[in-house]
Amino acid sequence: MSYHPGRHFLQIPGPTNVPDRIQRAMHAAVLDHRGPDFARLGRDVLEGMKSIFRTSGRVIIFPSSGSGGWEAAIVNTLSPGDKVLMYETGQFATLWQQVACRHGLDVEFVPGDWRHGVDPADVERRLTADRSHAFKAVMVVHNETSNGVTNRIREIRKAIDAAQHPALFMIDAVSSLASTELKQDEWQVDVVVSGSQKGLMLPPGLAFNSISEKALAANTTARLSRSYWDWQAMLKDNAAGFFPYTPATTLLYGLKEAIAMLHEEGLENVVARHSRHAAATRAAVEAWGLENLALDPREYSSSVTTILMPPGHDADAFRKITLEKYDLSLGAGLGKVKGKVFRIGHLGDFNDLMLMGTLSGVEMGLRAAGVPHQSGGVLAAMDVLSKPSLVAAEAILAR
Amino acid sequence: MSYHPGRHFLQIPGPTNVPDRIQRAMHAAVLDHRGPDFARLGRDVLEGMKSIFRTSGRVIIFPSSGSGGWEAAIVNTLSPGDKVLMYETGQFATLWQQVACRHGLDVEFVPGDWRHGVDPADVERRLTADRSHAFKAVMVVHNETSNGVTNRIREIRKAIDAAQHPALFMIDAVSSLASTELKQDEWQVDVVVSGSQKGLMLPPGLAFNSISEKALAANTTARLSRSYWDWQAMLKDNAAGFFPYTPATTLLYGLKEAIAMLHEEGLENVVARHSRHAAATRAAVEAWGLENLALDPREYSSSVTTILMPPGHDADAFRKITLEKYDLSLGAGLGKVKGKVFRIGHLGDFNDLMLMGTLSGVEMGLRAAGVPHQSGGVLAAMDVLSKPSLVAAEAILAR
Amino acid sequence: MSYHPGRHFLQIPGPTNVPDRIQRAMHAAVLDHRGPDFARLGRDVLEGMKSIFRTSGRVIIFPSSGSGGWEAAIVNTLSPGDKVLMYETGQFATLWQQVACRHGLDVEFVPGDWRHGVDPADVERRLTADRSHAFKAVMVVHNETSNGVTNRIREIRKAIDAAQHPALFMIDAVSSLASTELKQDEWQVDVVVSGSQKGLMLPPGLAFNSISEKALAANTTARLSRSYWDWQAMLKDNAAGFFPYTPATTLLYGLKEAIAMLHEEGLENVVARHSRHAAATRAAVEAWGLENLALDPREYSSSVTTILMPPGHDADAFRKITLEKYDLSLGAGLGKVKGKVFRIGHLGDFNDLMLMGTLSGVEMGLRAAGVPHQSGGVLAAMDVLSKPSLVAAEAILAR
Amino acid sequence: MSYHPGRHFLQIPGPTNVPDRIQRAMHAAVLDHRGPDFARLGRDVLEGMKSIFRTSGRVIIFPSSGSGGWEAAIVNTLSPGDKVLMYETGQFATLWQQVACRHGLDVEFVPGDWRHGVDPADVERRLTADRSHAFKAVMVVHNETSNGVTNRIREIRKAIDAAQHPALFMIDAVSSLASTELKQDEWQVDVVVSGSQKGLMLPPGLAFNSISEKALAANTTARLSRSYWDWQAMLKDNAAGFFPYTPATTLLYGLKEAIAMLHEEGLENVVARHSRHAAATRAAVEAWGLENLALDPREYSSSVTTILMPPGHDADAFRKITLEKYDLSLGAGLGKVKGKVFRIGHLGDFNDLMLMGTLSGVEMGLRAAGVPHQSGGVLAAMDVLSKPSLVAAEAILAR
Repeated sequence: MSYHPGRHFLQIPGPTNVPDRIQRAMHAAVLDHRGPDFARLGRDVLEGMKSIFRTSGRVIIFPSSGSGGWEAAIVNTLSPGDKVLMYETGQFATLWQQVACRHGLDVEFVPGDWRHGVDPADVERRLTADRSHAFKAVMVVHNETSNGVTNRIREIRKAIDAAQHPALFMIDAVSSLASTELKQDEWQVDVVVSGSQKGLMLPPGLAFNSISEKALAANTTARLSRSYWDWQAMLKDNAAGFFPYTPATTLLYGLKEAIAMLHEEGLENVVARHSRHAAATRAAVEAWGLENLALDPREYSSSVTTILMPPGHDADAFRKITLEKYDLSLGAGLGKVKGKVFRIGHLGDFNDLMLMGTLSGVEMGLRAAGVPHQSGGVLAAMDVLSKPSLVAAEAILAR
Repeated sequence: MSYHPGRHFLQIPGPTNVPDRIQRAMHAAVLDHRGPDFARLGRDVLEGMKSIFRTSGRVIIFPSSGSGGWEAAIVNTLSPGDKVLMYETGQFATLWQQVACRHGLDVEFVPGDWRHGVDPADVERRLTADRSHAFKAVMVVHNETSNGVTNRIREIRKAIDAAQHPALFMIDAVSSLASTELKQDEWQVDVVVSGSQKGLMLPPGLAFNSISEKALAANTTARLSRSYWDWQAMLKDNAAGFFPYTPATTLLYGLKEAIAMLHEEGLENVVARHSRHAAATRAAVEAWGLENLALDPREYSSSVTTILMPPGHDADAFRKITLEKYDLSLGAGLGKVKGKVFRIGHLGDFNDLMLMGTLSGVEMGLRAAGVPHQSGGVLAAMDVLSKPSLVAAEAILAR
Repeated sequence: MSYHPGRHFLQIPGPTNVPDRIQRAMHAAVLDHRGPDFARLGRDVLEGMKSIFRTSGRVIIFPSSGSGGWEAAIVNTLSPGDKVLMYETGQFATLWQQVACRHGLDVEFVPGDWRHGVDPADVERRLTADRSHAFKAVMVVHNETSNGVTNRIREIRKAIDAAQHPALFMIDAVSSLASTELKQDEWQVDVVVSGSQKGLMLPPGLAFNSISEKALAANTTARLSRSYWDWQAMLKDNAAGFFPYTPATTLLYGLKEAIAMLHEEGLENVVARHSRHAAATRAAVEAWGLENLALDPREYSSSVTTILMPPGHDADAFRKITLEKYDLSLGAGLGKVKGKVFRIGHLGDFNDLMLMGTLSGVEMGLRAAGVPHQSGGVLAAMDVLSKPSLVAAEAILAR
Repeated sequence: MSYHPGRHFLQIPGPTNVPDRIQRAMHAAVLDHRGPDFARLGRDVLEGMKSIFRTSGRVIIFPSSGSGGWEAAIVNTLSPGDKVLMYETGQFATLWQQVACRHGLDVEFVPGDWRHGVDPADVERRLTADRSHAFKAVMVVHNETSNGVTNRIREIRKAIDAAQHPALFMIDAVSSLASTELKQDEWQVDVVVSGSQKGLMLPPGLAFNSISEKALAANTTARLSRSYWDWQAMLKDNAAGFFPYTPATTLLYGLKEAIAMLHEEGLENVVARHSRHAAATRAAVEAWGLENLALDPREYSSSVTTILMPPGHDADAFRKITLEKYDLSLGAGLGKVKGKVFRIGHLGDFNDLMLMGTLSGVEMGLRAAGVPHQSGGVLAAMDVLSKPSLVAAEAILAR
């Protein structure tokens, strides 16, 4: 490939840029995974991750992609033929639904337009109607990485409660953990699925299941077959800081550092930072005269903004230009919006000037690709970034 | 923990010491896993791994521990209730058998004493007796990491052929790949399971299934449920160098370097080196007057030597002393030999002087722990290392 | 210190951002500096640096700061009391002059206003007047890092030739090498002094003297005392790839990689890239309504732009704000312009989006600091970056 | 070059093996050397180094090889024609003497046989005879890296005192700092010269001058010309944590980590460890029937053991074999013992098993090279390493 001076701008919505501190932490000799030093590490990360999920429950760490976390959540809590409620809020909800189907679940998959999140009222309606409690789980993607729609988990929880329904509540927080507000215990989420390569700022390779007591109880009767993903074997060895099979040691080194970094910044500050960058990005999009795929301000994502291309312009051709001319990787449209949208990831280890570099690359790319737009998106973004208090207010109002 | 000057000696039989070149290769920015640079990387490692497995088939790479590779091999090729033939050659065969049971297979698990490998004649007998071809697979651990017994895969293949039995032949090569001779195509192995953290010199986090045409055909009718481990989704995306879900990018950087390093040394030389170090280790064990757990010279492992403690001496107490006094991690006895044996790993990125440091640590540890032994094991090992031609001959004779 | 998410923007005019490839290359075990592998490395970098200086002469590499290179150039070529001609083009010319004085040279230091470079006609006039050839050397800073003025070395050479004067021509190319056009042999420069931490993209720690045959001849009669800096001892050992004392091994690993990277990009492209980024930066400065310290377009620096603060505003207070609010390090005013200017470094491993992040930080910083300016500098810069052909033309015209 | 599996054994007496912790610390982005974060780093390392030199004086850090430290000590304290007393205790004393001569000093260089250190009585005799106090300095190499002779600095100090002579006492502690006992203030050493690449476990590239009040006073009247090495400019900027020219930033990151590591282990433990490894090495040498170049047990080096080859055997041919067959770098004979001795470095980040690997490599190398010797040196070394209390006693007695 041709030579590219300077730093690549990896602004897909994950994997995100791995900070030097984490790279350094991972650049270390592998430990005996059955020795005393490892036990300390194991306990540190297992305990530390509870503070990130905001739970007093248990966190399971798998050497796996985030997708493995979906499968683990399912096979540990459900039985063949179980009915579950899912919503088509985007590509990742669609994929999780496929995993459920492949494992023989009976999925009620409520269609969606990919521009709106789950309607809590619909959840309440369906669960209220389910008098026999056939639904064993409600499964929702917190932040839809494919379209920049963030589901209102707190409201959905209230809807389940209003329906007085005992279904498990399981969410995918792959692209929301450590970037968007998430309070597992307060919101009574039974299983939170996540991965290492987004807000946690690590390379891909770890999946998480953060589980409630209720989920753990369900596990004892769940009859889907499981071995690699089995929670019980994990919990047994985790008690002493170990794992039932060889863990991804170097990613755990990185995870320990990531947890420390998130607490140094403060989780509230992390969330506010992502919200502020998302607001600046939306201001640029509006100034360019382009359209945000997400339509409901209450559902705007803090991690990723998905932008519709004007008719007659191919998003992938545009992305090819930003990559070749400006060494900027933007996210592709996935599934049914392929070619129609591009995505700007603004999550993970990120700051104002990295965002401005990114938005400048988008603006120059639009010009280079001949996409009709108003210039000056970068100025609009700078206006937002220069007014921190208003941004904070906007962030609060938007939720 | 207390301060330890100098380099830790990680001489468990895996994870092995990660060489600096691989550490450096992994210390690199994460790429867009859907971009053109990634596609090149994906194709390189998928193609490169075929040369390591010595196959013209297909290699599947999972973000997972080696244990995930066991599960993947099973769920992709078999159906609920299928009968399989397995042998209790040690702890890892025992664990793989448990995975099979958890997925509802009907396992004929032939008991063993952990000091011998699979008897090919027994395989032939059982398969010949199975006129209905009820056995759908024969599953064997190539090198038993828990006891230093290497199964004679080539002979077992001949036994299957002699029985004219159509069962799939699946092996675990986690601790034999890139250290012990392994020729998948020549030996007609249908699925080879392996992992990143042994002969491949990487940190843990990747599992492999290297699959034959016959295994692929079995996949189309196999009815065990699968999603994360599904070969078809992998093969579809792999064709263009991509993966169906986010791959463990940085481990793939390391894998590319590992493949290059193995070819720089030459796979034949890698195998000869491991064999020579194993012979030197056995010479030390014999000189100390201790006993190798493996009893059949045809089955001595090149990767790991497992040593029986004299009666009345606890292997774990001894290992604790070598760790604290000499900063040397040795492998623990697992399962039914816990406390009765210790293991010296001599695989991966390793050389004569690292081995001599290791054996010196064992000899000084035996002294410090008050374990009865003859001194001079290190001299016996140096004798072997100083006679390369004899060693080569011994290695040839031993197989 | 407080936590800063994302990547720091180190936009001082050196040390510059060290690219990951070079960091990786330096993260390697130290070699025996008297062994065969080292000899290969030594020969590679000594030979490779000749291509960067564009000389067929000899390059000396010292473990030292760039300042050591000044001292080395002096003590190797001159004798106590020798008369030399120097020009006050900025802070670094002033410092080099001090080094000369400390070593007992008789320096004619022509005063300057720090906003203009050396006038070649003045050189010709003074040398022509020096009929006795009392001047033993003309010493000029190629690119003045303190004020963004680039001296016209080619024209100064012509002036020396026009005066038919035998003085040595020595230049400081610390912040011009590998960023600004520099052709040692073609321009007949006798000693080029440089350092590792600017266009070579390395951490600080290496100084260079690239020397002509004429300089080498002067060396044999030069009577200033020298030991560490002595060229002869260096050249003797360098012939075999070695050094007379322990070299800075890991920086040499990085240097080898840097040379490779510069040739991958192509030195002409490196120069064009720096010129284009400088043009974009000047466009932003002009749009902000601020003033470039350098007044002559023929002398605009490609590496650094130095900007005058409006009266009544302190440059260091402004820089403090960009550092704290935007994690952006800008260069301070040095010497007699302290507090009156700030400097934007745009050299080394750098690209369009890094520049746009930088300029956005400056623009937001001006706003935050209440410095009077017109908004929209970033748009002006994007205009330049979007018109590569015009930029190239401007770059050509400006020289 | 051919492929070498495993870790290279770099057992020259420096540069030493750089530990991973230090490599990681250096693998970090370069800081603005005039910014607030740098100031903290600068103060930390300047203050920290005082604890390593055991002085309450001042430490100067140069971007330079250790050899630059020699020059700095001289040009900062002496004037042209000054008389100094030096002893030919080996190659490095010889080289330091050359530096002194090149700077116009009048060196009384007392000849030596390279097998003995400085006789304190001789110092006393010469200084007592110097009634006019013509000697301005006594300059001694603490540990002669070339021959494994450690001078008795404390006794030499007493000799100077006994002679009631006001000469400065300057020592080279390049290969003794942080490995051999060194107490600058207690022993009243005026200038200690050292470097980064031995006991400090860093790559080469930093030189140190640790200076007393008396040396500082001498500096004010010293008339040798200086600029790069000038202490005053350094001290002025160091007060705020800065340096007068660009420091070798990444080596300073490593230095901070090195100081922390030395204190974690404890300087007394560091010294005891080196002493113990030296004793084990000498036991091996004796068992092999070879001869230590150093003859006086009070002068045995803790950092390096220099071994005479039996007549008729070339040390460099032997070293070539250990390098090619065992990937072990041993030190060459320098200067007048070239080809006649080889050196085993046992300093820096080192432990028992690294030493045993090294000694095994020497023993197998002797065999491979056909050098007459008794086998079993490694057993003798293990005997010493297994008896820590006796070793400690021997170490105490030997001093």
